[in-house]
Amino acid sequence: MCSVINRVRAVQRALALTPRLRMNTEASSYSASQNRRACPGLSAGEDPLRAFSRSYCSRMALTKGLLFRQLFELESSTYTYLLADTETKEAIIIDPVLETIDRDLKLIHELGLNLKVAVNTHCHADHITSTGLMKKRLVGLKSAISKFSGASADIYLLDGDKITFGKHFLTARETPGHTDGCMTLVSGDQSMAFTGDALLIRGCGRTDFQQGCPKKLYHSVHQKIFTLPDQCLVYPAHDYLGQTVSTVGEERQFNRRLTKSLEEFVDIMNNLNLKKPAKIDIAVPANLVCGIHEV
Amino acid sequence: MCSVINRVRAVQRALALTPRLRMNTEASSYSASQNRRACPGLSAGEDPLRAFSRSYCSRMALTKGLLFRQLFELESSTYTYLLADTETKEAIIIDPVLETIDRDLKLIHELGLNLKVAVNTHCHADHITSTGLMKKRLVGLKSAISKFSGASADIYLLDGDKITFGKHFLTARETPGHTDGCMTLVSGDQSMAFTGDALLIRGCGRTDFQQGCPKKLYHSVHQKIFTLPDQCLVYPAHDYLGQTVSTVGEERQFNRRLTKSLEEFVDIMNNLNLKKPAKIDIAVPANLVCGIHEV
Repeated sequence: MCSVINRVRAVQRALALTPRLRMNTEASSYSASQNRRACPGLSAGEDPLRAFSRSYCSRMALTKGLLFRQLFELESSTYTYLLADTETKEAIIIDPVLETIDRDLKLIHELGLNLKVAVNTHCHADHITSTGLMKKRLVGLKSAISKFSGASADIYLLDGDKITFGKHFLTARETPGHTDGCMTLVSGDQSMAFTGDALLIRGCGRTDFQQGCPKKLYHSVHQKIFTLPDQCLVYPAHDYLGQTVSTVGEERQFNRRLTKSLEEFVDIMNNLNLKKPAKIDIAVPANLVCGIHEV
Repeated sequence: MCSVINRVRAVQRALALTPRLRMNTEASSYSASQNRRACPGLSAGEDPLRAFSRSYCSRMALTKGLLFRQLFELESSTYTYLLADTETKEAIIIDPVLETIDRDLKLIHELGLNLKVAVNTHCHADHITSTGLMKKRLVGLKSAISKFSGASADIYLLDGDKITFGKHFLTARETPGHTDGCMTLVSGDQSMAFTGDALLIRGCGRTDFQQGCPKKLYHSVHQKIFTLPDQCLVYPAHDYLGQTVSTVGEERQFNRRLTKSLEEFVDIMNNLNLKKPAKIDIAVPANLVCGIHEV
C-alpha cells in the first residue's frame, strides 16, 4: 500500500458502506433526509448565513499551513485543485487536465512542491486527465482513483481511505451515482469537500451514462455530503456559470435538484435529454488508463 | 460623504501620494525596488513557500466573519468579487459584469445580503459593468470608482479611502498605469488585495490606451502592491489561463513582467502589439456612466 494512503482498520471497514449495505441504508437515509427537509432549521425560510456562524474564513483557520489553489480548464470547465503542506511541501492534485499540464507543473515547480498523488474523483467523460503524463514528468508521483472506477491506477481508493500530504489529509467518501467510481474527498477538518461530479454548485452530474443512477446519486449526496457541516466548502469538478465555491449548507437549501424528493429528483434526472459529451468516446477509454499514457 | 466610505484625515491626506508626489517618489521607489530585487531574501533562489509561513489559511483566519466569493464571467474572463459581513449581512461587490447580473443578484438574494456598494477597480474597456443596472434593482446601492477614472458614480474614491461593510473594510490604494483611475482594494488585515488590471497573475494590464503609462504602472505595483505582506492574496480582475489567485510574494518573485527593471518593463509594455479590445468603443463610454444605464 502506498505510504500516503492510510486505510481504516478492518473492523471499521466492516462497518463502512459496501455497495450492498449502501443500498440497504438508502431507505432509512431517505427518511432521514426527508426529515431534514421538514426541519424548520433547514427550511427555505432559514437564514442562509447561519451556516457561516463559523464562517468561510474562520473555518479555513482550522487548516493552518495548507496551501490551496483552485485552477480552471476553460474548454471542459473543469476545476483542478492543488493542495500542499507549506512545511513539508508534500502536495496532491485533484482532477488535473491534459490541456493544462504545463500550467500546473510550472506552478508546482515555482512553489517548490513535491507532488505525491494525482487523484481523480472519477473516470471523467468530458476531458482527458493529465495524470499519466504527469507521472512521466514527475518522479515518484502516484495516481489514485476509486476501486470501483474500472480505471487503472497506482492506488485504488475505498470509502474511508486517507490521502496524506505532510500533516494534512483528505478522506475519500464513496459517492456513486454519476458513475460507480465517484469519490468525494473531504479535508481532515471537514472544512472542504471536493465533490467531483456528484454535487455541483446548485446542480449535480448527469446520470445517463457510465453506470449513472439517479437514485444512487441522490443517496450519495444526502448520506455522504449533506451530512457534512453546513459551513463545509463545496469545491466541485465543474462549473459552467463562473461560480467557484459553495457550502454544504447552501446546497442543502438551494440546490435546484437535490432539495427535491427522491421521486422528483429521479424524474428530473431521467428527463434531462442532454447531448452526449463531445469527447466521451476518446476521454473514457483514455481515462481508464490514466490518460492517454500508460500508468 | 457616503457613510460606508471613511476618508482619512486631512493631515494624512496631505501626506498621501498625489499624482505629482507620486511621480516625485518614483525615483526613490525605483531604487528601493532595485534593492529589493538584489536582496537575497527575495532572490529567485528563495523558497517561495516561505511566504506562507503564515499561510493562505492562517492569514484568512485574521478575517473572521467574512463571507467571500470569487465569480467569473467567461466572455471577458473577468473576476467579480462578493464580500460580506456574516453578522450584519452588509456586502460589497467588486467589478460586477452586465452579462452575469442575474447570477450575482440571485446569489446575493439567496445569502440574504444587503449590498451597500458596487465598486469598480477602474473604467473597464473589455466589458460593461452591471453597476448601473444593479443600482436600479437594489434600493440603496451606491456605486464607487476612483475620482481619477473620469466616470460618474455616487462615491469618488481617493487613495486611503475605506469602504466599510459591517465590521470589515477595504482600503483603496491608487495604482494608476493601466488607466489613470485604477484602484487596488486591500482588506483591513492586508490578507487580500483586489488588484484590478494593475497586477494580474504573472502579468499586468496593458498600457497602450486609456491614459496607459508603463512607468506609472511599474511604480504603482512596486509602491502600492509589492509593499504588502508576502502572503497577501492577489485577486485580479482577469485571468485568461484558469488561475484564480496568487500572492504578493509569488508575484514579486515570478511575475514575468514586474520582476524586470523599469527599463525592461517599459520596453516590454511598449512592444506588446495587442489588438484593440473588441468592446472598447462600447464599453468605455458605457462604463463612464456606470454601465449602459444612468447612475
